[in-house]
Amino acid sequence: MDQARDRRDASVPGRPMGAATRTVRLPQPLPMRRGGVLHEVDVAYESWGPRRDDNVVLLFTGLSPDAHAAASAADPTPGWWQEMVGVGRAFDTERLHVVCINSLGSCFGSTGPASLDPATGAPYRLSFPTLSIEDIADAAHAALRALGYGRLRAVAGNSLGGMSALAYALRHPGEVDALVSVSSAARALPFAIAIRSLQREFIRNDPAWEGGRYPPHGGPIGGMRVARKLGMLSYRSAKEWEQRFGRARCKPLEDAPPAGFGHQFEVEAYLEAHAQRFVGGFDPNCYLYLSRAMDLFDASEHGHDGSLPSAFVRLALREALVVGVETDMLFPVEQQVELAAALEAPGRRVEFARLNCLQGHDSFLIDVPAFDAALRPFLARL
Amino acid sequence: MDQARDRRDASVPGRPMGAATRTVRLPQPLPMRRGGVLHEVDVAYESWGPRRDDNVVLLFTGLSPDAHAAASAADPTPGWWQEMVGVGRAFDTERLHVVCINSLGSCFGSTGPASLDPATGAPYRLSFPTLSIEDIADAAHAALRALGYGRLRAVAGNSLGGMSALAYALRHPGEVDALVSVSSAARALPFAIAIRSLQREFIRNDPAWEGGRYPPHGGPIGGMRVARKLGMLSYRSAKEWEQRFGRARCKPLEDAPPAGFGHQFEVEAYLEAHAQRFVGGFDPNCYLYLSRAMDLFDASEHGHDGSLPSAFVRLALREALVVGVETDMLFPVEQQVELAAALEAPGRRVEFARLNCLQGHDSFLIDVPAFDAALRPFLARL
Repeated sequence: MDQARDRRDASVPGRPMGAATRTVRLPQPLPMRRGGVLHEVDVAYESWGPRRDDNVVLLFTGLSPDAHAAASAADPTPGWWQEMVGVGRAFDTERLHVVCINSLGSCFGSTGPASLDPATGAPYRLSFPTLSIEDIADAAHAALRALGYGRLRAVAGNSLGGMSALAYALRHPGEVDALVSVSSAARALPFAIAIRSLQREFIRNDPAWEGGRYPPHGGPIGGMRVARKLGMLSYRSAKEWEQRFGRARCKPLEDAPPAGFGHQFEVEAYLEAHAQRFVGGFDPNCYLYLSRAMDLFDASEHGHDGSLPSAFVRLALREALVVGVETDMLFPVEQQVELAAALEAPGRRVEFARLNCLQGHDSFLIDVPAFDAALRPFLARL
Repeated sequence: MDQARDRRDASVPGRPMGAATRTVRLPQPLPMRRGGVLHEVDVAYESWGPRRDDNVVLLFTGLSPDAHAAASAADPTPGWWQEMVGVGRAFDTERLHVVCINSLGSCFGSTGPASLDPATGAPYRLSFPTLSIEDIADAAHAALRALGYGRLRAVAGNSLGGMSALAYALRHPGEVDALVSVSSAARALPFAIAIRSLQREFIRNDPAWEGGRYPPHGGPIGGMRVARKLGMLSYRSAKEWEQRFGRARCKPLEDAPPAGFGHQFEVEAYLEAHAQRFVGGFDPNCYLYLSRAMDLFDASEHGHDGSLPSAFVRLALREALVVGVETDMLFPVEQQVELAAALEAPGRRVEFARLNCLQGHDSFLIDVPAFDAALRPFLARL
């Protein structure tokens, strides 16, 4: 049943997977929500902790991470949520079996626009069908089935991953007991759509994008750099930067252009450093697809009258935890209040934690003690 | 004394001035705060209302407007603050004489990077010295002197214009009685610096910028377009867009690229329309200089210990009104609370109005009734 393959078989060219990451080939073609069918789909994943029938937690990621959420014997490098997943952590892998999935459409082992289309032998690029959050959920579901997993104790995710977790619960009701949604939302609102639209425009406007046909290891470096900078603007908070940088000056860059337009302030150097680190590590077409998938997500489409409560009637969840951050401008806390309220149902326990972290949307990666405190009691009861 | 010239003499090539806009040539060279001296400086202005010794109000603009704040007999076209300036308006020109100044560094009649350098006969472009908000204030002060104006009843401004108004009061204490600061701040904080830095990067990265040497009527159209889009993101509010657009879809554009990355949502079409209107109307180098001048502004530099109160000791204002908007993310209301508090001094009347408008930083252009109500009583007492 286990069709996992090791990293040497990864179908995604040029994107390294972690040593502990494995992929599973879906046994069936994957019909996509907005049209098209994917064949020979791979889903990359990692897992931690003893596997039983009643202790499996599926963890979805935000837009950019891979499946390596935490270290393991096979890969001791720290993961993207290292301090939250492990023995004695909030996701306590002494007790829980945690599976983290690289999203369909991404570029770290799962099939996406950078993967080879089996029909042509060439990368999909823009021939990849429109990606929906529901497709990410369905691919994960099919992968878990192929790996022999049954009902899940919980499905969890941050940001885009929270949308994927909610989509999983909507698309596969009765197969998951609990939902943990962190800094996410039930639908995209226009401010977040506008930010992402602008990021995509930077990438598409970069001549090196070449309509999506850039060579491997090349592509719209400049566009990705400014997209990441705008991302950082939306991921953090003005308050954090005021405390952290104030009006501190940086060393002027060697190549500072004339007339004072080169970086002069610490905050400018900070954005540049973050952007440089990101560029080259993520496939631009994959970025475009995952970004647009977030815009398109609207859980209320699953209802009969365009409302969240009508959509959530189908949910068979027994409990849910929604965590939001007051300084989050991308997934504002009001949206998470809305999500928690819409999840309320007779016989369902819904908890909502409103955190006063300083780091905006990214707080879950930084203010770990606050998120540990918010998630640990809920997860301990699973 | 009146050295005003009509629009046919405007030194700025290719940028039309309104029919009522006049320019005054400064009688002396203008030393710039961060080095350099400008020669043969022009300042464009318009004025309304009967001129007396005790009723003159100087109005500074935000980054992009010209001096045409309101209609007049000479130019009946509506101005950028049409509903606030005129007979019976909050700035009541039956009683007050209002002078609106095009900022030094801009491109609507006042000397700026697009103007001809008298030393070379060619446009300054990036040889224009670093522009400071204080230079804008000093140029306005010298212009008013050249036009025979004496002490001002009030100096007022929105956004960048509020910074200019504060700089005027700091640089020329004893020559102004009252300050009106609207949606502005005493210094730039890193979030706003980061947004503006990114906008400048878009423009500078556009190959058509050519290091500032683009031809007249050409230049970095693409860079200006996305800079304006990011501007709109920072000028408005997420709440406004949620109410206004929600998740409404637009007609797909004719040239929508494949894979769903063309505009699909109303908010995307709205940003595009705004950007198209802006491009070509503002000189890119002028934009860069004015944008950076905002970053550099820190009123506390005028004190001895880097604090605002120490800087404001020199102010000889008798009264001040500070107006801020709760949804403003570019000049957040906390900064305006700070400004109002720092202006408090024995014998000085300081009023602060915190407005709950929906349109963010741009509210002063849109929610006119709220600003009329906030400014009218203060201005009526002048």
